Amino acid sequence: MILKMESMSSLAHSSSTTMRISMSNYNMEIENVIKEIKKYNAKNVGLQFPEGLKTKSTAIADEIKSKTQVNVIISGDPCFGACDIADSKMMDMVDLIVHYGHTSLPLKYKVPIIFVEAHVDIKINEVLEKSLKPLENYSKIAIVTTTQHLQLLDEIKDFLEDNGKEIVLGSSKSTRKGQVLGCNFSSIKDLSAEAYLFLGSGKFHPLGIHLFTKSTVIAVDPYTSEVSDIKDLADEILRIRFARIVKAKEVDIWGILVSSKDGQYRINLAKEIEKILEDEGKKAYLILVDNINPDILLPYLDIEGFVVTACPRIAIDDSLMYKKPLITPQELEIVLDKRNWDDYQLDEILFHDSKLCRN
Amino acid sequence: MILKMESMSSLAHSSSTTMRISMSNYNMEIENVIKEIKKYNAKNVGLQFPEGLKTKSTAIADEIKSKTQVNVIISGDPCFGACDIADSKMMDMVDLIVHYGHTSLPLKYKVPIIFVEAHVDIKINEVLEKSLKPLENYSKIAIVTTTQHLQLLDEIKDFLEDNGKEIVLGSSKSTRKGQVLGCNFSSIKDLSAEAYLFLGSGKFHPLGIHLFTKSTVIAVDPYTSEVSDIKDLADEILRIRFARIVKAKEVDIWGILVSSKDGQYRINLAKEIEKILEDEGKKAYLILVDNINPDILLPYLDIEGFVVTACPRIAIDDSLMYKKPLITPQELEIVLDKRNWDDYQLDEILFHDSKLCRN
Repeated sequence: MILKMESMSSLAHSSSTTMRISMSNYNMEIENVIKEIKKYNAKNVGLQFPEGLKTKSTAIADEIKSKTQVNVIISGDPCFGACDIADSKMMDMVDLIVHYGHTSLPLKYKVPIIFVEAHVDIKINEVLEKSLKPLENYSKIAIVTTTQHLQLLDEIKDFLEDNGKEIVLGSSKSTRKGQVLGCNFSSIKDLSAEAYLFLGSGKFHPLGIHLFTKSTVIAVDPYTSEVSDIKDLADEILRIRFARIVKAKEVDIWGILVSSKDGQYRINLAKEIEKILEDEGKKAYLILVDNINPDILLPYLDIEGFVVTACPRIAIDDSLMYKKPLITPQELEIVLDKRNWDDYQLDEILFHDSKLCRN
Repeated sequence: MILKMESMSSLAHSSSTTMRISMSNYNMEIENVIKEIKKYNAKNVGLQFPEGLKTKSTAIADEIKSKTQVNVIISGDPCFGACDIADSKMMDMVDLIVHYGHTSLPLKYKVPIIFVEAHVDIKINEVLEKSLKPLENYSKIAIVTTTQHLQLLDEIKDFLEDNGKEIVLGSSKSTRKGQVLGCNFSSIKDLSAEAYLFLGSGKFHPLGIHLFTKSTVIAVDPYTSEVSDIKDLADEILRIRFARIVKAKEVDIWGILVSSKDGQYRINLAKEIEKILEDEGKKAYLILVDNINPDILLPYLDIEGFVVTACPRIAIDDSLMYKKPLITPQELEIVLDKRNWDDYQLDEILFHDSKLCRN
């Protein structure tokens, strides 16, 4: 569990408890949470969960209500990261927010937040065995994962070291050691690894690692037991991105999407892009949105394409949901011949660049 | 056009211009808007539109950009009323918001707002002729409408007076004269009318008038030219509500939905409901949401029914979209045998009750 208070600069790590909520294989750390709620002497507590953990919200509320006197209010809005804490929406109604599934970001949250990483309890020894073959030609391996699997890093490290590998672990101010976010890969920059082992679900993170490092990335998915070199998928995604960029070259009327979520709010970047587009003789409109989806963009009949300054995953992950091209700021540079295709890179949110952050 | 500034208590009405945007039959009052923007010496201006007017946002932005030096940012989130102004989301980035399609509510907005009613230019003489037959047995008629048609009240009044009717027009602090909102019918309470003529689209508003007054309501729709006594529809809606209430009597685990929109934020009401339910031996969970939709409620597998303290229209209008019963606070009273079915009434948001409002 990581605690972070408003204007608190250092992160305090505390040990996790073994108590679990019901049938869950996620560690919801309910005993620690209750201890912290009592320590804060909180009267009103907000609970926030990513989509995959929202089913546990009523059980967590029950536990807290039965063991404390606090009022509990659950945040029901979609939540995809610590960029999207309910602090602004809940600041008038709670003294404390318990936020599950993400680690703290260097943002100034408006109420104290208890971050619970919700580590998943999953066996990985068999899937790790399968990773040795694709890693056989590499001796110096960086291991990388996401929030729910951070507690597995030691096991992965031990396993690979036992099999003769040298291990490197990156770190950054925005993440914990060995962790990458969907929008921030700073922990793996400038690592001297020959190859990367990513443990987790989905392909976006290993794809990002590959695009940032140009190195071999072996994606190890403990849920499907699939172990794969990400290169083929990366090539496929890049073909889609290339097609979008080609289509975007015909766009004369642009929408520039700005997120109202505190950790995705890049208004200055959006204004820079607006100016660049107007200098190029294009039309451009700034549009502020909370949750971007295809329906939200339907009313802008004359807008032919969108640049997304919100979560970098939207343009890439949801590409096929949109008829009009949605591209990242870096892709726009390619569209406008200000960047070479060979220098393609994913968009990142740099949380330490105060110009790019609301707080 | 109505201007309202933070902590400004009186509303100033100004005359509308005749200038229209492009092919629109809504009066977007662009000349007035530009005059006001210059008067405020605004540097950054937010634009907000209800769903039906969002298609005009780029044309309005073009006009403002071409005639002033301001930066324009469009609010892209769904917007269904003046309960839902983008002031909280935009307060860091704009000096002024131009809000189309709704009238000011007695809330403390965080930035100055220019409210533009966006009157629709539509012929109503033929459809008014059709209303005489169903009104033939009534001599004292109240006329009621919604924001976009307020400028038609004089024409309706003249027409009915020319046909021998006596006209009454209600008013309240939350609305303009003769106006009802989807969530507030205070302007028509205690009117001594024998029957009501509602001009506008949709059936929700005339339904509300009928349920509040128990009187004959003739709905006059200038878009479809349909003129109808709302009684049959009201009976049908009430049958649906009755069925939901019966189903809700079996619910033991409740979600209480609270809106984070400033003008729909009724946390105290929600907490009262939570206490009442718990006193009745039920389980209850407060859930804070921005936009309520069926997907948002899916994760709460164990919750069997929801009480909506947000916009009163949601439970009624969208009833068929939800498998689990969604009911209003007044309907919950019937469920819990604290109110008689004969005393059924729609939910209202009382904007002057400070306990029910965020600001």
